[in-house]
Amino acid sequence: MEIQFSEIKERKEVILNEDDLDFGKVFADYMLEMDYDMVKGWHDVRIVEHHPLSLDPQCMVLDYAQEIFEGLKAYRCDDQSINLFRIDLNAKRFCNSAIRMAIPPLEEETFVECVKAYVDKVRDWVPQRFGNTLYLRPFIIATDNGLGVRASRTFKFMIIASPSAAYFKTGLDPVDIFVEEKDIRSAPGLTGFAKCGGNYAISLKAGTWAKHNGYSQVLWLDGIEHKYVEEVGSMNIFFMIDHELYTAACTGTVLPGVTRQSILDICEEKGIRVHVGKLAISDIMKAGKEGRLNEVFGCGTAAVISPVGKLTYEGDSVIINQHKTGDFSKELYTALTSIQWGKIPDPYGWTTKV
Amino acid sequence: MEIQFSEIKERKEVILNEDDLDFGKVFADYMLEMDYDMVKGWHDVRIVEHHPLSLDPQCMVLDYAQEIFEGLKAYRCDDQSINLFRIDLNAKRFCNSAIRMAIPPLEEETFVECVKAYVDKVRDWVPQRFGNTLYLRPFIIATDNGLGVRASRTFKFMIIASPSAAYFKTGLDPVDIFVEEKDIRSAPGLTGFAKCGGNYAISLKAGTWAKHNGYSQVLWLDGIEHKYVEEVGSMNIFFMIDHELYTAACTGTVLPGVTRQSILDICEEKGIRVHVGKLAISDIMKAGKEGRLNEVFGCGTAAVISPVGKLTYEGDSVIINQHKTGDFSKELYTALTSIQWGKIPDPYGWTTKV
Repeated sequence: MEIQFSEIKERKEVILNEDDLDFGKVFADYMLEMDYDMVKGWHDVRIVEHHPLSLDPQCMVLDYAQEIFEGLKAYRCDDQSINLFRIDLNAKRFCNSAIRMAIPPLEEETFVECVKAYVDKVRDWVPQRFGNTLYLRPFIIATDNGLGVRASRTFKFMIIASPSAAYFKTGLDPVDIFVEEKDIRSAPGLTGFAKCGGNYAISLKAGTWAKHNGYSQVLWLDGIEHKYVEEVGSMNIFFMIDHELYTAACTGTVLPGVTRQSILDICEEKGIRVHVGKLAISDIMKAGKEGRLNEVFGCGTAAVISPVGKLTYEGDSVIINQHKTGDFSKELYTALTSIQWGKIPDPYGWTTKV
Repeated sequence: MEIQFSEIKERKEVILNEDDLDFGKVFADYMLEMDYDMVKGWHDVRIVEHHPLSLDPQCMVLDYAQEIFEGLKAYRCDDQSINLFRIDLNAKRFCNSAIRMAIPPLEEETFVECVKAYVDKVRDWVPQRFGNTLYLRPFIIATDNGLGVRASRTFKFMIIASPSAAYFKTGLDPVDIFVEEKDIRSAPGLTGFAKCGGNYAISLKAGTWAKHNGYSQVLWLDGIEHKYVEEVGSMNIFFMIDHELYTAACTGTVLPGVTRQSILDICEEKGIRVHVGKLAISDIMKAGKEGRLNEVFGCGTAAVISPVGKLTYEGDSVIINQHKTGDFSKELYTALTSIQWGKIPDPYGWTTKV
C-alpha cells in the first residue's frame, strides 16, 4: 500500500502548552484520508493537511448515521520513541463495527499501517508529559448523496489526532455514577458491541441529565430486564465485591474495550480470578450497604482507569471505599500506564513502536 | 420570526423531467438554514442557495450521530395550489425526536413557519404529475467540534427538498418482506419512537441482506421477546386477519407515523375497528397458512401504502392475497392521496395550503 503524502508548505513549529491541554479540543495539522467506492474498493490513501470536509446536506451520514470510529493513543516514552498500545485490537474492533453497520471493512493490516504512517507524520504532536497523549481518532462515514434509506456505496476513512490530557479532569480521583433505570444503551440484536455513532447518540440524554445532577457518568443496565450492569458512559466497568472482581461479558451488547481486555489479561497472568458475566445492580447495592463493595472502576482508552466513589440507584446511594481511590485501581493504572509509556519492559508484546 | 432570503442571482428555469424522476436524488436549488447556540437559541433563519456544508472532521455529528430528521411532502393540486399534509404531526414528532436526542427542540410553530416559507420559495420544484411530489427533508445536526462524548452545544437546522417519484418503483404492486429473527430495531428505553439517524443505521445490515436475497424490506420484531411485529423497513405496517385490522402500538419502540395515524383516523371515522397492540408473528404466519391473512400493507409518508405480497419467517413463506394488491390497500391509497392532492374536499382539516 502506497500512502501519498502532501506536505504542508509552510508548516509551523508545533508548540504544545501542556499545562492547558484538554481532551480532544486541539488537532494535529495533518489528517489521513482514504476513499471507498464499489469499483476500486478502499483506495487513494493520503496524508494531507487537516481540513474541513465538504458534505452535501443530503449526504447519508447526516440523516442515517452510517458511521463508525475508533479511539487509541500514541504515548511518548522517555527516549522520545512513540508507543502504540494493542493496535491489533482496535483494528479488529473497527472491522467488526464496520460489518455490523453495513460498511465495507478495512483490512486489519491496512488499518495498522495507516495509523503507524500517520503517527509518524504527526509525531511532533505527541505530548511529552506522562499522562498526556496524542489521542487518535480513526473513523468512517457514509458519503453517498440521497434520501432513500439504504447502505451507502461510497465511504471515507479518516484519521485525525488530538494532543490531549486525561479524559476526566479529576484524574484518578473517584467520580459519582448514576444508575439509569429507564433508558438503556443496547439490547441483544442491536449494535452495542460496535463503536458506531448511534450508540453514543442514544446515551446523550441520560448523560446530560446525570451531569446536571452532579454525576460524572451513567451506568447502563441490560436492555431486557433492566437488572444487570453492562457499562458506564463510554467505558467498561469492574466491581470488586468481597475482594473478587466482576465485569459484564461482551456478548453483543457491551463494547469489547481494549483496556477491559488488558485488565482481564493482567488478572489472568497474576492469577486473579474475574467473574465475567451477569451481575445484578441489586447485589452491588446490597454489597455496598454491607461494606463488601471494595472498589468500583470504569476503564477505557480515553480515561484508562476511572475509580467510582458513589453509585446512586433508585434514589439510594452507596459510597465506595470512603470515596477514595482504591489500591487495586491504582495498581492497575500503574501497570497499564507503565507499559503504555514504556516505563517497564512490556511482558505481553502489547506495544508497537512508531 | 423574520426569514431572510438570499435570492440566487441567475436562477435557471426549473425543468423537471417527470418521466425520469427517482426518489430523493435531485434537489431544489434553495435550502433553509437556522443555527442554534446556547446564548441566542435558535436564530438566523434564512433561505439560501442549496450548498455543500463545511464540517470539520471532528464535528460531533460524524462520530456521535446526534442528528434527527423529518420527512414530508408538498403536493401540487390541479388548480396549481400546493398542499402540505398534517404538518402539525411532523412538527410535534420533530420536537419529540429532539428531546430524546438531547437536541434543543424547535418550537412547533417555528417548524411549520419554516416549512411553509421554504415551500413557497421552491414551489416551481413541486412536480405536476399525480403521484410525484416535492419530498421535504427537515433535519438537525450537532455541529460542535471535539471528541469528548457529550451533547453538542451548537446545532444546525436545515430543510432541503427533492422532487420525487414514488418511493418504491413497484408503486402499489405488492413487495416481499423478510421477517428478521436476530437483529432488532429497538427496545423499550431506546430511541425507536424518534426519527434519529441511529435507528436507520441499525437497520442497514439486515436491509442489505434482505435486498440481496430478493426481499424489498425487513419486518422488525420486538426487542424483548423477538415475537411481536413492530414495523417494516422505514414504514409502519398493518395486517388484516379475518377481515380485522391490526397494527403495533406506538409505546416507545415504534415510530408514530403520520400515515399510520391517518389510517387509524380514517378507520375510526368509517367505524372500522383496528386492534392496536401486540400481534405475534406466529399468529400471522398461521393465519397466512389457513387463508385468513387477507391483506398486509406498509405505510409511510414516502411510500404512502405499500402492499405486502409475501412474508418469510424462519424459512417459511406465506403468499398474501395471491400476491395481488388488496381492495382495502387500494381504498386507503385512494382515500389518502385524494386528500393530499386536493382531489376531494378534506373532511379532516389535514391539509395546509402554501
